Amino acid sequence: MYRYRLMAPGPTPVPESVLTKMALPIIHHRTEAFEKIVAEVREGLKWLYQTQNEILIFAASGTGAMEGAVVNLLSKNDRALVVDGGKFGERWWKICKAYGIAHDVIKVEWGQAVDAKVIEAKLKEHDYRAVFMQASETSTGVCHPIEAVSKLTKNLPNTALVVDAITALGVINIPTDDWGIDVLITGSQKALMLPPGLAFASVSKKALALCEKSDIPKFYFDFKRELKSIQENTTAWTPAVSLIIGLQEVLRMMKSEGLEGLFKRHAIQAKATREGLKAMGLKLYAPDAPSDAVTAVYSPEGMDAGKVVKSLKNKFNMTIAGGQDQAKGKIFRIGHLGYYDPMDILNVLAAVEFALIENGHKLTPGVGIGAAMKVLMEG
Amino acid sequence: MYRYRLMAPGPTPVPESVLTKMALPIIHHRTEAFEKIVAEVREGLKWLYQTQNEILIFAASGTGAMEGAVVNLLSKNDRALVVDGGKFGERWWKICKAYGIAHDVIKVEWGQAVDAKVIEAKLKEHDYRAVFMQASETSTGVCHPIEAVSKLTKNLPNTALVVDAITALGVINIPTDDWGIDVLITGSQKALMLPPGLAFASVSKKALALCEKSDIPKFYFDFKRELKSIQENTTAWTPAVSLIIGLQEVLRMMKSEGLEGLFKRHAIQAKATREGLKAMGLKLYAPDAPSDAVTAVYSPEGMDAGKVVKSLKNKFNMTIAGGQDQAKGKIFRIGHLGYYDPMDILNVLAAVEFALIENGHKLTPGVGIGAAMKVLMEG
Repeated sequence: MYRYRLMAPGPTPVPESVLTKMALPIIHHRTEAFEKIVAEVREGLKWLYQTQNEILIFAASGTGAMEGAVVNLLSKNDRALVVDGGKFGERWWKICKAYGIAHDVIKVEWGQAVDAKVIEAKLKEHDYRAVFMQASETSTGVCHPIEAVSKLTKNLPNTALVVDAITALGVINIPTDDWGIDVLITGSQKALMLPPGLAFASVSKKALALCEKSDIPKFYFDFKRELKSIQENTTAWTPAVSLIIGLQEVLRMMKSEGLEGLFKRHAIQAKATREGLKAMGLKLYAPDAPSDAVTAVYSPEGMDAGKVVKSLKNKFNMTIAGGQDQAKGKIFRIGHLGYYDPMDILNVLAAVEFALIENGHKLTPGVGIGAAMKVLMEG
Repeated sequence: MYRYRLMAPGPTPVPESVLTKMALPIIHHRTEAFEKIVAEVREGLKWLYQTQNEILIFAASGTGAMEGAVVNLLSKNDRALVVDGGKFGERWWKICKAYGIAHDVIKVEWGQAVDAKVIEAKLKEHDYRAVFMQASETSTGVCHPIEAVSKLTKNLPNTALVVDAITALGVINIPTDDWGIDVLITGSQKALMLPPGLAFASVSKKALALCEKSDIPKFYFDFKRELKSIQENTTAWTPAVSLIIGLQEVLRMMKSEGLEGLFKRHAIQAKATREGLKAMGLKLYAPDAPSDAVTAVYSPEGMDAGKVVKSLKNKFNMTIAGGQDQAKGKIFRIGHLGYYDPMDILNVLAAVEFALIENGHKLTPGVGIGAAMKVLMEG
């Protein structure tokens, strides 16, 4: 009998206090009471985003906000630059393709971060309306150099930087305004510790200017319409009421932890995870630019990574993620963003140790946990 | 930020499915719907107790049922035999004393189990109406030899064996009918995984015959009155409705795990705890007759055990128990009965390792966890 433990890179566990709040009877959204909640989360999101820009709230998963960024910022004759270093990078050009938008793709080897110089060179070649990329590529556990790229786009008046920070916001420091990010996207089911169902997009002045010109068809994900609504502390369409009530609670929790506290906790727990896995004799998939949100690691030589995922599921009632596409069978991925504490890290490492031993990998029980504990103690 | 973790020998964590069931709107207890629930828990308790006897349900903590056993089975001129090997053994003679009932006390050194031969000798000396003892003495982490004692009392027609199994039922095998236990007491907040508030007492024919003769004053804890009620699938006084609704759920969970599964899980997790603590260089308080419900362990030489308890509370938001009375400052106690799985055991061991290191005890991080993992793997 093992309790269910969710250690995937999203959805992530929802805090008990948030669950109980969301379980209360639903209220109507066209009321003063709800507008007060929206006003509070509107300010809270600005704090989390480190921005004065408005942040649009959609009843959608993160992909909805990604599509929104494409269809609101671009016009039919525009050209986009896409960084594709994994499953989520791919999504950017797939959306562009669906709308017939011209785009160039910078293919990055899985497990590697994009080289900002490659983007710099491309930006000199073409007049791109937008650069689309990930802050943390969930499929590979890589952090892309957003700050370096933002320095390239900041001074281009007609080129927006659109960042999918779905597994990055609230995990690592991404100061939207300081860096000049035009659209920063996130979802509810990651560091925000909520069930899936909410997507967010911040919009800079530069982004809004592009929205003004956009001639791509759109309706549900209409940024201008949502901007007007959020400025009145409401949403254009029916909002996911209980999730926004949960959002109010998680933002309060996050504020009380503080941005520095959030980043530090994630950094330490991510490092503990990596050191624990390395002490088991495993090789990290993204050793050079690891994301503090998710750790991707190679399965031992000759052991299908799917076996590790399956052992964790069947024997320990624990969900981690396997590799996708080209990484399938080779890697497994552990999420450590959101409502996790050091004990959760030790739990997933213990389960991985058990699973590796069960599948024939030699290691001394506790060796990975011990290495992680050392990191946690120093933290 | 650590989530709250409750690793004391009661109250113990309540399963999520039970919490949600108990959170539903309250129903009235004098209804057919509630009688159906009582009928189900009545049968479920008999299964758990391994008995055909009825089990009385009180809105009270375990102490209430202990008092009930004393005032219902004894009469003014009776004599009782009490085994006192800890804080809860003490409670038996304190209740006897409060009612002016003559009693002899077998004092057992803390950390030791009673020797059944001593009870045998006492039973030859006096005509006791009842023997009062603990199956698992929570204050010392000791298991007393109930089976051996039951062989002594079984054939004495006027001597009841009354066992406080508050931290034993559902943890170790105590077959009420096979052993001939006359009153077996438990509470909701231990292996039954519920909040505190319910106490239970089974009543054998021998116990009921003594109840018939009893002339001690009683009202709320009137066994005869409750027996009549439970046979009609109700209780004499207003029951703790939501707890009984929770009881229905936990008994279903326990049935699906099975008695053997329950006993095996507790045995393995208790052994893992003990081996983990020993590998840290600690000395068990009750090495010879350890309870699988709670492990009591000496703090390292020169380290106040209260410091370990405090470190766990302040740094890890984890509740374990310290020592009581004569064991205060010397030992700390870890509960592992009820809704715990192996990951919880590894968590408390990790927290203890951290706390010991913090307080100056030398150990290699992970050493206790590794030892526990070996036990868990063999299980």
